[in-house]
Amino acid sequence: MNARLDRSDAVLQPVADARLPFADTRLPFDQARLDRLLDDAGIDVLVVSSKHNIQYLLGGYRFFFFDHFDANGISRYLPLLVYPKGDAGRALYVGHGMEEAYEKELGKFWMSDTAAAATSVGAMEQAVAHLNKLGLPNPRIGVERSFLPADAEEALRRAFPGATIVEAIRPLETLRARKTPTELAYLREASDRVVDAMLTVMASHGPGSTKRELVDALRREEVARGLAFEYCLVASGASLNRAPSEVVWREGEILSLDSGGNYRGYIGDLCRMAILAEPDAELQDLLAEVDAIQQAARKPIRAGTRGGDIFVSAEAALKRSPIAASTDFVAHGMGLVTHEAPRLAGRGSFPYPADHADLPLEADMVISIETTLKHPRRGFIKLEDTVAVTADGWEGFGDAGRGWNRGGTRIA
Amino acid sequence: MNARLDRSDAVLQPVADARLPFADTRLPFDQARLDRLLDDAGIDVLVVSSKHNIQYLLGGYRFFFFDHFDANGISRYLPLLVYPKGDAGRALYVGHGMEEAYEKELGKFWMSDTAAAATSVGAMEQAVAHLNKLGLPNPRIGVERSFLPADAEEALRRAFPGATIVEAIRPLETLRARKTPTELAYLREASDRVVDAMLTVMASHGPGSTKRELVDALRREEVARGLAFEYCLVASGASLNRAPSEVVWREGEILSLDSGGNYRGYIGDLCRMAILAEPDAELQDLLAEVDAIQQAARKPIRAGTRGGDIFVSAEAALKRSPIAASTDFVAHGMGLVTHEAPRLAGRGSFPYPADHADLPLEADMVISIETTLKHPRRGFIKLEDTVAVTADGWEGFGDAGRGWNRGGTRIA
Repeated sequence: MNARLDRSDAVLQPVADARLPFADTRLPFDQARLDRLLDDAGIDVLVVSSKHNIQYLLGGYRFFFFDHFDANGISRYLPLLVYPKGDAGRALYVGHGMEEAYEKELGKFWMSDTAAAATSVGAMEQAVAHLNKLGLPNPRIGVERSFLPADAEEALRRAFPGATIVEAIRPLETLRARKTPTELAYLREASDRVVDAMLTVMASHGPGSTKRELVDALRREEVARGLAFEYCLVASGASLNRAPSEVVWREGEILSLDSGGNYRGYIGDLCRMAILAEPDAELQDLLAEVDAIQQAARKPIRAGTRGGDIFVSAEAALKRSPIAASTDFVAHGMGLVTHEAPRLAGRGSFPYPADHADLPLEADMVISIETTLKHPRRGFIKLEDTVAVTADGWEGFGDAGRGWNRGGTRIA
Repeated sequence: MNARLDRSDAVLQPVADARLPFADTRLPFDQARLDRLLDDAGIDVLVVSSKHNIQYLLGGYRFFFFDHFDANGISRYLPLLVYPKGDAGRALYVGHGMEEAYEKELGKFWMSDTAAAATSVGAMEQAVAHLNKLGLPNPRIGVERSFLPADAEEALRRAFPGATIVEAIRPLETLRARKTPTELAYLREASDRVVDAMLTVMASHGPGSTKRELVDALRREEVARGLAFEYCLVASGASLNRAPSEVVWREGEILSLDSGGNYRGYIGDLCRMAILAEPDAELQDLLAEVDAIQQAARKPIRAGTRGGDIFVSAEAALKRSPIAASTDFVAHGMGLVTHEAPRLAGRGSFPYPADHADLPLEADMVISIETTLKHPRRGFIKLEDTVAVTADGWEGFGDAGRGWNRGGTRIA
């Protein structure tokens, strides 16, 4: 399982599916940037446990068997990646026995040291054995505490009573904030395919379709387009309730579909509107107002702009708008996680520190922008768009279907 | 958020989608049985955090938005259910803000007290506030430590330094071991649909199809049948590697598909065989030997049989079999979790304590039985079946297609 740790034996394997190649290393991530971030955070060694950060650091690899669920027997699947700062040759990946049996043979891991375990504590015991071999005195160990089970953290603390446990979520999130060309391509695909699936569902359903039927159809359409369906929020008529249910979409009513589907782990998350009628002038105006705020949000976006200026611009437009009283605006980074860095404002459903509001946007960051009108009489009217930051502006991903899309007829 | 906790105000709401009704309470689970199990485990109050146990205790409810992923912002979704033993009227559910906004309106929660949070620590702070109102002195708090994030457990321990934290995975697993008629129906549907999807994929693919194409097709076929696709292990030719890859299924070669798909959360997990030829006499014999072991495993199954007798019977047949040296047998309970109680043997990939080997099987337990032949020359030959225990025997779920299924032609 654990190969010898002599430096001369440390071998970086070629990565079969490497999607994030960096010219200066054989690693699928920017090692120099990671090491700087770990320095800043006071971390000597990482023990990563979240599926998204392991996927990132393994160059896109995610074990297919536990893609969605974790529970198994009296414990759970817990992948762990041990990365000693600056020393990728002595990294360790702890997975499930099937990963060691099948995926290692396929060359999926860039590190030579791998191990397997069947419980959360068993996985941490493998990591502890490796940390012992690394011989770091009183190490500062970076972990993601909200993704590290309590029993596994206890096993780590017991093994290293002199260690300092440091929260590593932010340095890892910052590492992921600027996307590679491959990641941008995946996010573009995810966005285009989610919108295409939503427009297909809207056009192929009509009066009498239930919200649950619409969501089930969207699941099929997303999967048919090579996406993993994650969720769909759906509101119809004047209701502001967005849970799937037996509520029926009726003649004359509006519909919002707000769905997330992932392509190779990268989320497409957009909201589009439909209606079972010709939209009247008021509805046309309301959606145009929502769109105007979305466009105002895009306007300042370019590398170097202060991140918070997206809000300044959108909120100035919102303040002038007749829908101001019923409308919320939000914007946040996205990628492997639906809400990630850059975090531009902490409010509403996203009460996270706005760490990046006063920092400049960087090229290849990807931002989700959302304007939500909860109209007391006309219902839930929302656009959510995905925008990649470029050197001199932005590129919209999945920008189709942003007006009123006409519904069709019900498929019984 | 938290309603008053005076006993007179405690209200059990009707459950909109109740799937596990018990005549003696308005709860969707057997409260008397749960309370006995908590007594035996020395637990005064549960703080449940796994999605599967929350789904069970909420009568089938699972929040659709975080069905698959958890990560959000700088923390994660963490649902919590606080259940004081014997006092369901003072239970609390902590979910996401959208659950309080949308799902509560739809009557999804049987408890009147609900709260919302956006981080793992925030969720535990809501639970702690409720525990404080419950006024239990030095409570023995049951948690699932492998499903409780380290930061949330720390918040709990800090708030109740005099409390005892007790592992609750086993009493909750035991509670779920005997399935209700609704759960049995879901497991039957899941099994039938997974097998139907696998047989469709086998018949519609042929020479030149890659393992990845087969898995992608199976995902679409399962989703088209109303299942959530979880995974597919796939081996072809003489290889024993079961990871999806670009490896091609060739004329004359065998294929195993071993897939899990869930129906309303309940897993169908079966393995079936195919071949791109007429199977020769050796292959016919090998699969017949595998089947004979599977049938030997079923033979003793009925309510009252010692659980471990499944192994006794299967292993006696295996010992007599010419494939003994290359073949493994395993059996385990299944339901919301792929491997759950009854746990009948701890071996191989499932090194969990065989707590239930010496206990009698009970009617309405559901058992997965698996015989795996790793043939050095002919490849990976396996049958996995699902069997429900009845008063006087067993019922097979998804029992179609257990012989050699013929492949078709490749769809380019």
